[in-house]
Amino acid sequence: MKLKAKYFDVDVSEPIVMMHDDDCKEIGVQENDRVRLEAKGTATALVSMSDTVVERGTIMIPAKTMTVTGAKDGSLISVVFAPAPESVRSIRKKMDGEVLSKDEIFSIVRDILDTKLSKIEISAWLTSLYINGMCIEEIADFATAMVDTGERIVFDRKPVYDFHSMGGVPGNKVTPIVVSIVAAAGLMLPKTSSRAISSACGTSDFIETFCDVALSAERLKDVAESTGGALAWGGAINLAPVDDMVIKIEHPLGINPRAQMLASILSKKLAIGADYLLIDIPMGVGTKVPDIESARAYARDFMDLGDKLGMHVECAITYADQPVGSAVGPNLEARESIRILEGKAHPTSVAEKACELAGIILEMGGISNGNVKAKEILNSGAALKKFKEIVEAQGGSRDLKSEDLKPGQFMAELRSPKSGYVHGIKNKDIVAVAKAAGSPNDKGAGLLLFRKKGQRVESGDVLMEIYAENEAKLQRAVNLAERYQPVDIQGMLIRRVSVPNIK
Amino acid sequence: MKLKAKYFDVDVSEPIVMMHDDDCKEIGVQENDRVRLEAKGTATALVSMSDTVVERGTIMIPAKTMTVTGAKDGSLISVVFAPAPESVRSIRKKMDGEVLSKDEIFSIVRDILDTKLSKIEISAWLTSLYINGMCIEEIADFATAMVDTGERIVFDRKPVYDFHSMGGVPGNKVTPIVVSIVAAAGLMLPKTSSRAISSACGTSDFIETFCDVALSAERLKDVAESTGGALAWGGAINLAPVDDMVIKIEHPLGINPRAQMLASILSKKLAIGADYLLIDIPMGVGTKVPDIESARAYARDFMDLGDKLGMHVECAITYADQPVGSAVGPNLEARESIRILEGKAHPTSVAEKACELAGIILEMGGISNGNVKAKEILNSGAALKKFKEIVEAQGGSRDLKSEDLKPGQFMAELRSPKSGYVHGIKNKDIVAVAKAAGSPNDKGAGLLLFRKKGQRVESGDVLMEIYAENEAKLQRAVNLAERYQPVDIQGMLIRRVSVPNIK
Repeated sequence: MKLKAKYFDVDVSEPIVMMHDDDCKEIGVQENDRVRLEAKGTATALVSMSDTVVERGTIMIPAKTMTVTGAKDGSLISVVFAPAPESVRSIRKKMDGEVLSKDEIFSIVRDILDTKLSKIEISAWLTSLYINGMCIEEIADFATAMVDTGERIVFDRKPVYDFHSMGGVPGNKVTPIVVSIVAAAGLMLPKTSSRAISSACGTSDFIETFCDVALSAERLKDVAESTGGALAWGGAINLAPVDDMVIKIEHPLGINPRAQMLASILSKKLAIGADYLLIDIPMGVGTKVPDIESARAYARDFMDLGDKLGMHVECAITYADQPVGSAVGPNLEARESIRILEGKAHPTSVAEKACELAGIILEMGGISNGNVKAKEILNSGAALKKFKEIVEAQGGSRDLKSEDLKPGQFMAELRSPKSGYVHGIKNKDIVAVAKAAGSPNDKGAGLLLFRKKGQRVESGDVLMEIYAENEAKLQRAVNLAERYQPVDIQGMLIRRVSVPNIK
Repeated sequence: MKLKAKYFDVDVSEPIVMMHDDDCKEIGVQENDRVRLEAKGTATALVSMSDTVVERGTIMIPAKTMTVTGAKDGSLISVVFAPAPESVRSIRKKMDGEVLSKDEIFSIVRDILDTKLSKIEISAWLTSLYINGMCIEEIADFATAMVDTGERIVFDRKPVYDFHSMGGVPGNKVTPIVVSIVAAAGLMLPKTSSRAISSACGTSDFIETFCDVALSAERLKDVAESTGGALAWGGAINLAPVDDMVIKIEHPLGINPRAQMLASILSKKLAIGADYLLIDIPMGVGTKVPDIESARAYARDFMDLGDKLGMHVECAITYADQPVGSAVGPNLEARESIRILEGKAHPTSVAEKACELAGIILEMGGISNGNVKAKEILNSGAALKKFKEIVEAQGGSRDLKSEDLKPGQFMAELRSPKSGYVHGIKNKDIVAVAKAAGSPNDKGAGLLLFRKKGQRVESGDVLMEIYAENEAKLQRAVNLAERYQPVDIQGMLIRRVSVPNIK
């Protein structure tokens, strides 16, 4: 049927048109069905039915879709029922627990990219993946499909080393140190990182406090090939755009299906042509990987996928029962990280983890005693030199010093209400407090831990300092910290277990 | 933060506001998160982020939401992050295969009703239900929750008899006959039916060709209490509004989770206070219930649920390998149904099924030899008399005759390309052809079958007549019929199975 096209100022992640109930009835479409619009060009859109905001005989079309059809505001446009894409049938198969073929997986990924699948359909896809999972072959196809729908970087310098942390542990600021050590040893590690999704501070969130992270593919290639390292934000490069689209649907559901996560990580590594890949699997209470069994299962999957995808993969299961180091929040993490490169006083956990990871990468590159070598490079100042070279190549200052990075000017101390020992530090609560203080958007926001697990505390000791850029956020963070008590203090006697008195 | 409210002409099933990317960043919300809007009143809405159609400092709010907040176009409104409702956690639990408590199920149903859950979340809920299912206790709670969120009808006349067909078989026009027989026997059966969702013609779609179906609760009560019967459209009464909302999300996914279906059926029966309920389970190739095992499983679930919900439930597994009777489409089905009441020539399958179902209901009401009694009532003309009484009470004509109902004026015959026997009639293809012809919106559209399963056919015999209200739709239906060949003709030799020649 012909309807009068009308502009409609909307920008939503799926192409929606609004039609009158009676027009929908006439062409036989229902809410969330699709219609094909045809004027000079054609477009497909999802139907939203209304008998209030749209008149009979009229169809409201968002600007983007209008442009594709070549119709003008007020002109007539042909509107007919359009079937759902074939990929919806493949989603149904995954709901039924079937194994999908490479073609089916590719068509789902392609249709997500082309916004041919609706939010409802993508949500059903992710929920099915979450419940029914994928086998290794499917995940390998999935990763390949995600690479094929994104940008690739082909380095002239070979081989390409890379590493990735599964995340989930706050304060994990090892990236600049690992990259600097590895690059100083003569290997090339063009690291791309992400911003925080649910965490308090992603690697890119703190790197951008001292240099550009939004590098184009071209510039990332230049920086890495000239310096051997890079500290880029993956989001700027469009390596796996489908992943970013899917995250928007995962986020409100609070799920990250294992198959999606594995495919997403590996697709980004495939896209930069990584030959050697180290996966850091932080294991600890309150992280994605709570115990050694699940850590081992992840490691096995990563290595199997590496085999299928022609990439040499090794894994490191790392300690994550509490934050890595003391600082959480952009400027604070940047400062702590650079202090270690500068050889200044620092918490041992960060330097140790960085050298362990760098050591494994060096050994993958044929350098023996990797951990010892990594420490030498760090202690000799060679890593700092390389770090400054990378920072300068990314538009930062060659004279960058850790002291340049200032915490927010509003600070509050959290003191221990009692004496005892630190029984545990709750990662999730640490993240919540840092976020309440404004991290990662307010660069000075975050917290510094003064006690770690196992340490002795006297009543009144400062457990942490909380920093913020304004007083309201500081107060919000302090309130949360007081309520949550993220640092758990116990006496040597944790609980008395006795036989109840029988009267 | 304070943003300038701006009207936004949209009417979608979920409350969406559009905000600029940078404003979202500042208050810490992401796409598909929620914000709380506060002016004179408060409202919660889902965030859609844009850096094109909305300026910084502005928030675009649909009229409905604007009204709730009491803000005016151009006035400042307070916008803060709002957490997802608790029910999202319960959806997560169902994803993880857990059993939900009554409170959890009630809060999900309540939040769907109040549009507090987004399409993404409802899709995840339905997908989880589809994959992980529900136990009988959960389904009973689910049905109760759906009743509690809708309208109820309390009849003064007791007891209330009811029946429901699970559907899936085309041409199932028994309702007016069953209702008329049962009411003529002195029992009260206030039947509510639905319109077609995916079928060619729902019961209400053909009943409305000769009387009103959109009865209010009040009027349904009057009609049923005075005549003993009713032929109403459930959709007009708001018996289980959540069900209608959920169907919009199920529809594009092409799923109808068993738990949702069972709860939905029983909630509508609870809402009218049914004491005795007969469930018709059509079993056959190409229906929801393909074999006797699944038919029995449904029957068991219905009866278990009846026990939990205090309703006497019986089930009838009925033949559904091919359409019931000859006619498919509103006027055609109405005509066939009324012809049976009039005692005119008719296909035996419809009358037989109607009397079997009516007979069971009569027996539930203490009348022995129900089937024999039902046939007597039909053959004596008492059912026709009662039928006309009901039709008149629902605004139809007392002089209604089957001939009043005319098929569409455009007709084409589908002839058999060969001689043989009708090996099968494909229900799904029959539905597709009738829909292509315009059913159920074009009341004259549909088809008449001239051969049924097992019958002898000569080449050139008319297999069916296809009716439409315009030539284009007729042609579309004929093309489909020729391509699908819904009536499958085979010789006595169906396939020759031989040992291949080995060369």
